[in-house]
Amino acid sequence: MKTEDYLVVPGSAISLADFKTDDTAGHKKSEALARLEELRADLNTLQQLLYADGRYGLLVILQGMDTSGKDGVCRHVVNAFNPQGVQITSFKVPTSEELAHDFLWRIHKAIPRRGMVGIFNRSQYEDVLVVRVENLVPEKVWRKRYGLINDFEGCLCDNGITVVKFFLHISNDEQKTRLQDRLDDPTEYWKFNLADLKTRAKWDAYTAAYEDALNKCSTKRAPWYIIPADKKWFRDLLISQILKEKLTALNLEWPPLAEEAVGITIE
Amino acid sequence: MKTEDYLVVPGSAISLADFKTDDTAGHKKSEALARLEELRADLNTLQQLLYADGRYGLLVILQGMDTSGKDGVCRHVVNAFNPQGVQITSFKVPTSEELAHDFLWRIHKAIPRRGMVGIFNRSQYEDVLVVRVENLVPEKVWRKRYGLINDFEGCLCDNGITVVKFFLHISNDEQKTRLQDRLDDPTEYWKFNLADLKTRAKWDAYTAAYEDALNKCSTKRAPWYIIPADKKWFRDLLISQILKEKLTALNLEWPPLAEEAVGITIE
Repeated sequence: MKTEDYLVVPGSAISLADFKTDDTAGHKKSEALARLEELRADLNTLQQLLYADGRYGLLVILQGMDTSGKDGVCRHVVNAFNPQGVQITSFKVPTSEELAHDFLWRIHKAIPRRGMVGIFNRSQYEDVLVVRVENLVPEKVWRKRYGLINDFEGCLCDNGITVVKFFLHISNDEQKTRLQDRLDDPTEYWKFNLADLKTRAKWDAYTAAYEDALNKCSTKRAPWYIIPADKKWFRDLLISQILKEKLTALNLEWPPLAEEAVGITIE
Repeated sequence: MKTEDYLVVPGSAISLADFKTDDTAGHKKSEALARLEELRADLNTLQQLLYADGRYGLLVILQGMDTSGKDGVCRHVVNAFNPQGVQITSFKVPTSEELAHDFLWRIHKAIPRRGMVGIFNRSQYEDVLVVRVENLVPEKVWRKRYGLINDFEGCLCDNGITVVKFFLHISNDEQKTRLQDRLDDPTEYWKFNLADLKTRAKWDAYTAAYEDALNKCSTKRAPWYIIPADKKWFRDLLISQILKEKLTALNLEWPPLAEEAVGITIE
């Protein structure tokens, strides 16, 4: 599995129809689950090293249609980390206070400090997705946001934050199955939201909006990956592998013992 | 294992010397680890139910001497939960802004909303522990805080938050070993803090301060438990069991399907 096969190459113009939602890169489920356990152990160590090293942070952005698995990634990948080193933010419909500020205000407050892993369940990209499709601001306002987002993410990168963005790519049929499950399973009733049906009816408009976000905002330093997400186990495997590569690339190091502590014996 | 054996009975006057730090309630390690895995699965389900139900929250307070395992509990117990449903706050030396407010101001901001699990790594109790031992405020100020803390925790309970407090009880010898490990293992150097030695030298004063906090602030609704913590696996087992009992006692229920969603088929 070559993770760069799933990268939106900066400057390219991808069409989501060209990316399979049920790709598994030839993996079998049982073998993938075993490999995932190994990756989880690696991620746990790398995250402790990130924390100890303290020079860098990691920001992971999760986006995708309803039911695409943003919560599942938190349950099955993010929980490999020590929870003390992770800060998850779910961006909901903006509050009145958030709406009284620019769209990046609430985002900036949630950026992880160096040493930490930040997970965004939805993000600044909602402001060029739902906001665009539902006409919540004029086009000249949301059009300008792609550039603002790139500038903002560049500023984060300049300050030691590695930014990696995952679009969880599911098929329209898979979403149908997953929404129906919420109606049929009493332990899933609470996840069902009637508004999700209105969003589903605008699948094509959302797809077009996602394509623009992926194409305009996949940069060398803050790239987008398109994650085939019909198979949950492959989604988790691929994301774990990418995160391992990103953390490994930082060449993290265990800090030395403080000079004044050398040679001390505890009494 | 009866969890009430580890409870500080409200109104009692315990002495920490009467509580073993290496107690294992007759458990063997291998059997305990297998049981812990089962408990972790139970906790995962219960936490999802807490979130879905939405009527209650859970606040877990971790206190103990340096190296007693507050971080270890986060790594090995708290990570059983979906990280999206958990909010961990580590209270450090107060900032100048925090010091310009009353001692409960920063605590209140970190209280979990209903549906969530909040974990406090250190807490409001630092204001009757380090503050008392190091004489950071006059005695008449910290003396009043026991009552203020009980009132505050009562207010949380009134609002649907279950409060449970764990004192991680290690021996002086065990702390010596664990501090020495930080000096001897290059992957632990970063955890070593010279200031911990000054705190260690005041072991008896801290023990007395802890005893007062445990005796004055173990209430029926916000009880303290004394967790034998020399054996990490027993610490994790006992805490997991207590958390399971606390969550089970809430009689949580999966919410019904919204009326307007009954009978819908996804197209």
